[in-house]
Amino acid sequence: MKKRVVVALGGNALGNDLEEQWESVKRTVKVIADLVDEGLQVVITHGNGPQVGMLQTAMSEFSDSHSYAKPTPLTVCIAMSQGYIGYDLQNRMSAELEKRGRNIPVTTLITQVRVDKEDPAFLNPTKPIGRFLTEEEAKKKETENIHFVEDSGRGYRQVVASPAPQEIIELDTIKTLLDDHHIVIACGGGAVPVIRTEDGLKGIDAVVDKDYISAFLAKELDADQLIILTAVEQVALNYMKEDQEWISKMSVEEAKAYSKEGHFAPGSMLPKVEAAVQFAESKKGRETLITLLDKAKDGINGKTGTIIYS
Amino acid sequence: MKKRVVVALGGNALGNDLEEQWESVKRTVKVIADLVDEGLQVVITHGNGPQVGMLQTAMSEFSDSHSYAKPTPLTVCIAMSQGYIGYDLQNRMSAELEKRGRNIPVTTLITQVRVDKEDPAFLNPTKPIGRFLTEEEAKKKETENIHFVEDSGRGYRQVVASPAPQEIIELDTIKTLLDDHHIVIACGGGAVPVIRTEDGLKGIDAVVDKDYISAFLAKELDADQLIILTAVEQVALNYMKEDQEWISKMSVEEAKAYSKEGHFAPGSMLPKVEAAVQFAESKKGRETLITLLDKAKDGINGKTGTIIYS
Repeated sequence: MKKRVVVALGGNALGNDLEEQWESVKRTVKVIADLVDEGLQVVITHGNGPQVGMLQTAMSEFSDSHSYAKPTPLTVCIAMSQGYIGYDLQNRMSAELEKRGRNIPVTTLITQVRVDKEDPAFLNPTKPIGRFLTEEEAKKKETENIHFVEDSGRGYRQVVASPAPQEIIELDTIKTLLDDHHIVIACGGGAVPVIRTEDGLKGIDAVVDKDYISAFLAKELDADQLIILTAVEQVALNYMKEDQEWISKMSVEEAKAYSKEGHFAPGSMLPKVEAAVQFAESKKGRETLITLLDKAKDGINGKTGTIIYS
Repeated sequence: MKKRVVVALGGNALGNDLEEQWESVKRTVKVIADLVDEGLQVVITHGNGPQVGMLQTAMSEFSDSHSYAKPTPLTVCIAMSQGYIGYDLQNRMSAELEKRGRNIPVTTLITQVRVDKEDPAFLNPTKPIGRFLTEEEAKKKETENIHFVEDSGRGYRQVVASPAPQEIIELDTIKTLLDDHHIVIACGGGAVPVIRTEDGLKGIDAVVDKDYISAFLAKELDADQLIILTAVEQVALNYMKEDQEWISKMSVEEAKAYSKEGHFAPGSMLPKVEAAVQFAESKKGRETLITLLDKAKDGINGKTGTIIYS
């Protein structure tokens, strides 16, 4: 049996615009192909910050300037970004595998994630998305379900909740493809968040954290390892301070204690460490690797990175 | 063994904008769920005319009005539209199946189709896409690979080639999921057209006809039937004329003869009949049904529609 891993790609794996994405993805797929060469069975997840931001801005300017155009919900923008990023990733991943003489199908699945309407995150939406608006524009768009906040003098931005993932709707599809040795790209941008209603699942304005859903997916797939690829090679204590200390290995208990002590920046390393813990503590033997995108292969071979284990 | 069918959805199954799509899709999934209830194994393909038009316009206005934004290639817009339409379809399809007590996974695959760079269609691009531009705007955007034509006094529009499908890149993934009894949504908007290069498959500005790729997919999947759902109940001879005659059944030879005689409108019924013939003549016993979206169930039970057989 091949070792099964979920590889979570951060912003640096995809770049900030169309051209950067094309270039970044070419480097990213080499990294992932190296993991395949090492004998791993790979599922790829990814963020979508700049991409969904671009789509949100473009679609909102479009509906503002054409009376016939309706506003595009965030959920639809997320689905669009899954299509767009997934296409680049699967296209370049196949090209890289082909170069290496490997014939492995790579496909992107449009993925939804069920969240809980009673998730406390919905009481206090904090994640800013989309473009800056004037107070007047914001007031016009505000509804019961769409909230705006003033962002340090730069204007108003929509804020959405970041609830916890409860169920990946397309999980069976991911499993079927993995069992048949495909490479799957799923849960892009944290997946499209939906809530259960009497009329089935309905999209809701929210963003599920990419690292949390990756940990959740890794659990549900009974993966051996969660690999979070980011812009630093190792997790550090006292990051950027004089007494900075790189960590090679930490238990979930240590990770929790360090988190409490405020070693990891919220919105940056903290969610990664929390996701790492969520997966590692879910079952004995599961571990998370956090490392630099380009060091993934060294990381899985124990040469660098930070392992969080239970 | 369940009868395997490819169901090709036309514009009337999806509506013309975001709100229309949500409403249309709710009706469309009932039609498809009826086919599932009748014991068919279903693959869904769909057009994307209004959706990719909206995305092209929005993304092109976005890059025109922000110096930091790069132009979005048509291929990327197609991939986005696959994500957006697929999300609505799989979400509502699951809700409808759940209502009927059926637990069948439904997933959208981002799909690419290889076309031939030497396809004669590239010598004479004729399919208009995107918004109207002034002559000046068009001249500015024109490159070796991007062509514009003046459209009957209303301005300039990009025209692209509509080459024939040669290979569906994600075919193995579709097969694996069908064999495991999933419902698959694939080849949206004719799939993202790519050509083979030394560096793997690369996107190319083109649009593969939705009906042709559906026939191609049906062949490759060894489907029993191709079902083209559209806005008329039957194919007609002398359509809209005094001596109009509905057709219940026609052989591929008859269909070809009628096509030659000019009975079917180019860009409308003609490509459907041609796709129907392509599938039906590819192997003895294969047949295509063309009928009204809402009459699909009656159609497969021989009560209405037009069957093209070999």
